[in-house]
Amino acid sequence: MTTIKDSVHDYIELEPTAEALLDTAPMQRLRYVRQLSTVQFVYPSANHTRFEHSLGVYHLADEAVERLPIDDELARRLRAAALVHDVGHGPFGHQTEAAIERHLGRHHDEIGWLLEETDLGAVLEDHGLDPEAVAATVDGRGPLGELVAGSLDVDRMDYLVRDAHHTGVPYGTIDHARLLYSLEIVDGELALEAGNVATAESALIARTLMNATVYRHHVSRIAGSMLDRASERLLADGVVDPERFARLTDAELLATLTEYERTAELATRIRERTLYKRALWVRREDVPTRFRGLDYDRTRTLEREIAELADVSPETVILDSPGDPSAPESRARVVVDGELQRLEDRSSLVAGLDACAREIWRLGVYAPEDVLEPVREAAATVLEVDG
Amino acid sequence: MTTIKDSVHDYIELEPTAEALLDTAPMQRLRYVRQLSTVQFVYPSANHTRFEHSLGVYHLADEAVERLPIDDELARRLRAAALVHDVGHGPFGHQTEAAIERHLGRHHDEIGWLLEETDLGAVLEDHGLDPEAVAATVDGRGPLGELVAGSLDVDRMDYLVRDAHHTGVPYGTIDHARLLYSLEIVDGELALEAGNVATAESALIARTLMNATVYRHHVSRIAGSMLDRASERLLADGVVDPERFARLTDAELLATLTEYERTAELATRIRERTLYKRALWVRREDVPTRFRGLDYDRTRTLEREIAELADVSPETVILDSPGDPSAPESRARVVVDGELQRLEDRSSLVAGLDACAREIWRLGVYAPEDVLEPVREAAATVLEVDG
Amino acid sequence: MTTIKDSVHDYIELEPTAEALLDTAPMQRLRYVRQLSTVQFVYPSANHTRFEHSLGVYHLADEAVERLPIDDELARRLRAAALVHDVGHGPFGHQTEAAIERHLGRHHDEIGWLLEETDLGAVLEDHGLDPEAVAATVDGRGPLGELVAGSLDVDRMDYLVRDAHHTGVPYGTIDHARLLYSLEIVDGELALEAGNVATAESALIARTLMNATVYRHHVSRIAGSMLDRASERLLADGVVDPERFARLTDAELLATLTEYERTAELATRIRERTLYKRALWVRREDVPTRFRGLDYDRTRTLEREIAELADVSPETVILDSPGDPSAPESRARVVVDGELQRLEDRSSLVAGLDACAREIWRLGVYAPEDVLEPVREAAATVLEVDG
Amino acid sequence: MTTIKDSVHDYIELEPTAEALLDTAPMQRLRYVRQLSTVQFVYPSANHTRFEHSLGVYHLADEAVERLPIDDELARRLRAAALVHDVGHGPFGHQTEAAIERHLGRHHDEIGWLLEETDLGAVLEDHGLDPEAVAATVDGRGPLGELVAGSLDVDRMDYLVRDAHHTGVPYGTIDHARLLYSLEIVDGELALEAGNVATAESALIARTLMNATVYRHHVSRIAGSMLDRASERLLADGVVDPERFARLTDAELLATLTEYERTAELATRIRERTLYKRALWVRREDVPTRFRGLDYDRTRTLEREIAELADVSPETVILDSPGDPSAPESRARVVVDGELQRLEDRSSLVAGLDACAREIWRLGVYAPEDVLEPVREAAATVLEVDG
Repeated sequence: MTTIKDSVHDYIELEPTAEALLDTAPMQRLRYVRQLSTVQFVYPSANHTRFEHSLGVYHLADEAVERLPIDDELARRLRAAALVHDVGHGPFGHQTEAAIERHLGRHHDEIGWLLEETDLGAVLEDHGLDPEAVAATVDGRGPLGELVAGSLDVDRMDYLVRDAHHTGVPYGTIDHARLLYSLEIVDGELALEAGNVATAESALIARTLMNATVYRHHVSRIAGSMLDRASERLLADGVVDPERFARLTDAELLATLTEYERTAELATRIRERTLYKRALWVRREDVPTRFRGLDYDRTRTLEREIAELADVSPETVILDSPGDPSAPESRARVVVDGELQRLEDRSSLVAGLDACAREIWRLGVYAPEDVLEPVREAAATVLEVDG
Repeated sequence: MTTIKDSVHDYIELEPTAEALLDTAPMQRLRYVRQLSTVQFVYPSANHTRFEHSLGVYHLADEAVERLPIDDELARRLRAAALVHDVGHGPFGHQTEAAIERHLGRHHDEIGWLLEETDLGAVLEDHGLDPEAVAATVDGRGPLGELVAGSLDVDRMDYLVRDAHHTGVPYGTIDHARLLYSLEIVDGELALEAGNVATAESALIARTLMNATVYRHHVSRIAGSMLDRASERLLADGVVDPERFARLTDAELLATLTEYERTAELATRIRERTLYKRALWVRREDVPTRFRGLDYDRTRTLEREIAELADVSPETVILDSPGDPSAPESRARVVVDGELQRLEDRSSLVAGLDACAREIWRLGVYAPEDVLEPVREAAATVLEVDG
Repeated sequence: MTTIKDSVHDYIELEPTAEALLDTAPMQRLRYVRQLSTVQFVYPSANHTRFEHSLGVYHLADEAVERLPIDDELARRLRAAALVHDVGHGPFGHQTEAAIERHLGRHHDEIGWLLEETDLGAVLEDHGLDPEAVAATVDGRGPLGELVAGSLDVDRMDYLVRDAHHTGVPYGTIDHARLLYSLEIVDGELALEAGNVATAESALIARTLMNATVYRHHVSRIAGSMLDRASERLLADGVVDPERFARLTDAELLATLTEYERTAELATRIRERTLYKRALWVRREDVPTRFRGLDYDRTRTLEREIAELADVSPETVILDSPGDPSAPESRARVVVDGELQRLEDRSSLVAGLDACAREIWRLGVYAPEDVLEPVREAAATVLEVDG
Repeated sequence: MTTIKDSVHDYIELEPTAEALLDTAPMQRLRYVRQLSTVQFVYPSANHTRFEHSLGVYHLADEAVERLPIDDELARRLRAAALVHDVGHGPFGHQTEAAIERHLGRHHDEIGWLLEETDLGAVLEDHGLDPEAVAATVDGRGPLGELVAGSLDVDRMDYLVRDAHHTGVPYGTIDHARLLYSLEIVDGELALEAGNVATAESALIARTLMNATVYRHHVSRIAGSMLDRASERLLADGVVDPERFARLTDAELLATLTEYERTAELATRIRERTLYKRALWVRREDVPTRFRGLDYDRTRTLEREIAELADVSPETVILDSPGDPSAPESRARVVVDGELQRLEDRSSLVAGLDACAREIWRLGVYAPEDVLEPVREAAATVLEVDG
């Protein structure tokens, strides 16, 4: 059996199916997609990739299925799904997700097309696995799909610990070994054994704190918004076909953006980290309800309004008003006093963490440093907030 | 300058005052007092001592005062107080604290007597420090006393990280470096710089999770209760003078208990880990209000009642109904939007964590395995709970 | 299956035999014997015990036997032997080993007597294991005994990593996972698979560096020598029966030494770390051959000679001239180019490490600070070295 | 003062000069050059960059100069040199070093040209530093230049620890804090204080073991050789100007290689990890002296000979016969018994480590899998070794 050394889980043993899957081009491509995309502009050590994360998720799935009373076929499907679960990510992962959805109507968890178009599907079949069933598992559907994508999935167990290791921020160091040990199947679904409310809470807490300090850091959000706008321009102008776009690596996207005249400046700014700055950064309670969680068209309209009022070019204004954060972990099932319950129905912390998530929510308006003042004033007027 | 290697903070540099203080008998005694006393019965690696913890607290105080705008005298006082802050602890630390308070009316933070009776006071004076001022600082009083004992103290910053390192439980790995970096003095008191609500919350969270999994683990509580009862017997029977008792090491107390006939059995049970078991373990909402947070006399009376009803010897029943947990961290001061605020007034999490602390609260009744059933029934009747 | 959290290996799963063995008094006693005895006087965090180390060795043995093609009975014997392998250690482990051997003629690896006299043997039999076979394995004899005590044993794999974790000295962090993965059985004996010369060397290097910085640190050697002399006095004067002596804990020995008039001073010095100092500390090449690696009687005779010449009391002179270090790791078998070879025949490093071990060898003469000068002069004369 | 969180050294404080240097394009480019280039094909977590490494080296230099008795100007120069020391690296670092030297006659430590051609020089001058003096320091020349590039440099102290953290291989975890603490200046040059022979040896050992398991791993060497051949083709055919080549990022080089017809196949093979395999892999003693450590022209001639004899295309044969490894650490100066000595004159280990380095030396011949057999036979004939 082949073994690979990993910085987080030490040795990872690979079964032959995993080895064959790793040798495909779509999996090798993940070596060139950073797990935390633009976070490296804040935490310079955050250069780990979706490739090593995929190995980690595979490893945790392997440890979980060894302990669960399931048959070999399901075990093999879950392991395979864990390994390929991120194969549908575009360049810079979540940062181009919205652009890809707008142009292809497809989420990164839908990987059916990839199984068909690349040799991934054939490799799965060669090893006796049904590609469709694997694709469904990646999407969290089918038997124990929640182990790969759900409230107790191994994806999160790996990324929290891995992101902590590579950023140096300690909040992600959850007790993933205990989470794995405590998994059991109740009525066909995953649950945590009795005595694990605090274990389940700790994963939720870890993600909330990692959101606050890492995932939602304003520098990463600004770089991400700039990438989104540049990507949209590339796709809207037909410079790159959306299907090809979805398969670029981080560097290939940056290179493509640099070569195209209308996106060259944004690309250079991202690459050399001369990013836009915050013209506005407003707490939730200070933002009128109708300006929270804006859809794309409305966002672009407001950006143009702000630019016009500020008398600056429309490309120089970026509005970023995200939706409310979700917390799938809070729906994890735990056994308490012999009964199966949702964590959110049991834990006194869940409500506090929800409030905490709303607390760190911010609406941002970003612009180049030299037009920051006019953009601030115009944006405050348009969005009806204090400048 | 002397340097000492520490498992948590790597190298710790000692100024001459610290070196001289370390050489005193009261400080050397801390080598023989485990930081987590009876927790080693649950987490076998938890054998770190109050000696190494004291070095760690000294180190963090040193790092803090280097960054704060304070004069050299205060800096030296804070460092010295940090180093000796635990010198007043009895054997098994918190587990004999109540017995010592009952017999000496003294809390472990009051160390004035030690400065007088041992050479600690003389060493402080030799190095130009006022023993009384140091003692006040250990107690959290005087200028920046809260750095040593307060809502933002270096004591907690060290023990959370150290306890995590030595138990293997990851929840205590707070970002203590960031806490230190963020300290500032506002109106003569410590506060955290703007942008640190999540940092402050994380320390509070860490302690709540460590409470749930480590500090309040039932096995440790049972062993602690057994120690308390045995210690009380020793003191009540005049076998050991309370002042001498307070200066014993862990092992000396165990040896003394083993030698005295009336405590020998309890001592052997503790030492060989044949501990009492839980006859009752009841959630807060299921315990009548008047039986929560019982004082010592009431506890003993109820124990006797239970024993009588169960027809067992009174020594075999232990009732453990602790008070509500306190969370001094929630009173930490943080700068938010330019204003100084208490964390509890600012953080959406504090209420959730308070609820969480109440959630993990349990009333326990403990007894030897062979009388568990009669004690359970009798205790349920006396305490009016379901058995 | 019961699981225990360990600071080094995270979760350790215990089979029922292990649980039952842990519950015996001889195993529980190991909670009170520090793994590194007097090293805590140099590295204050080195307070881990032989109890947690035993759990770690059990865990590594368990991982090893899972991978090796052996039958269940042998697997169970190896695991049991790994768990109890240190049960024969006296107080302060290696530091009283010589005294015990002088008075009982028994090495700590001989545990047959313990299996008979305590319930350890009965517990083994209850679980279908032959106590004699287990005792042989602890001593490195019988099938795969070398896994427990030999050139590739799991004892060393655990203690190097554990001592590194608890002292903070990084040199012990060997790749024990790779060592375990690489074990195979060739002609009935353990060997490392091809490609592992560097892996084997690294363990040897780690121990050499840990010797230099931790295990052979002069402060630890001085405290150890003082313990040996005090123990000898106790035993020679018949204060404690040798069999009882061998079963004391660290603290019990210190207490016993404190109570006996003739050893009280040494005990207080050890406990409060007012240790003897080095009167002489001489490199190997500067010590006449006949004074290297002295036996006990010769040592005591020379000490008396030195004391007489220096005109000080004989108890105040300690001579410490250890034998040559052994390096069992260098006899580890590795597969190189398809052939089985001893590491020492294959590795260019072994000779260098041997030389290195001789390099750090020192003869020491220790004495209280106030008589250091006369002792130095007398010792230099008697031992024919430069003072 | 700005602080950056690092995965290895926790918080790194940046003085204004450092901040300004970081904002230049040549420094930002290092975000896109992996520290261990092709090692990620063996250790998938090895994705850390020369950017974060540069921050780490700056941090260690900062800690060193704080302790050394030097004036402020020299301190500032050393810190600046530490930060920019890797700015001259081409894409994939050491893997394109030889190609760049062949075409530009310049080593990566010569950064004078960069200071002139980019804004780096201006930024240094703006902050009162002499660019030429900084460039000399990067090259190891001038006062204490050896702190940045020499036998005791902070470059190595950072990369050993960082590479260990990111690969998961523990051998690099040296005690860099102790190395820093032990530095002193003797006769104007760096030396280690008395008592540090083992400390110095440990750094040498760490690099030897990291060479064996990480830096010289055959998969990384194969990918590196393929990169070298493809880069040579690109440069020889004039596809990219050498000066531009030297400033590409990893991904830009791969993209450029992919776009050019004659290098496209090699590029795809590297990117998707369908690497050449070992046709030959021969120990030092089995290689005739005249085929060890071959220069470039001789290598290419032999490759063509082998290809002709094997009747395959010349591009499909790669010969890799590296020179003897150097060990600058062995020339580190240490104080022993009051005298200043070179480590190699003092340490019994150095010779062993030299032998060990020769032991792991291998000559390799690489080729695509489908022509492996004919190439093996031909190469064995041409190089006069056993096939």
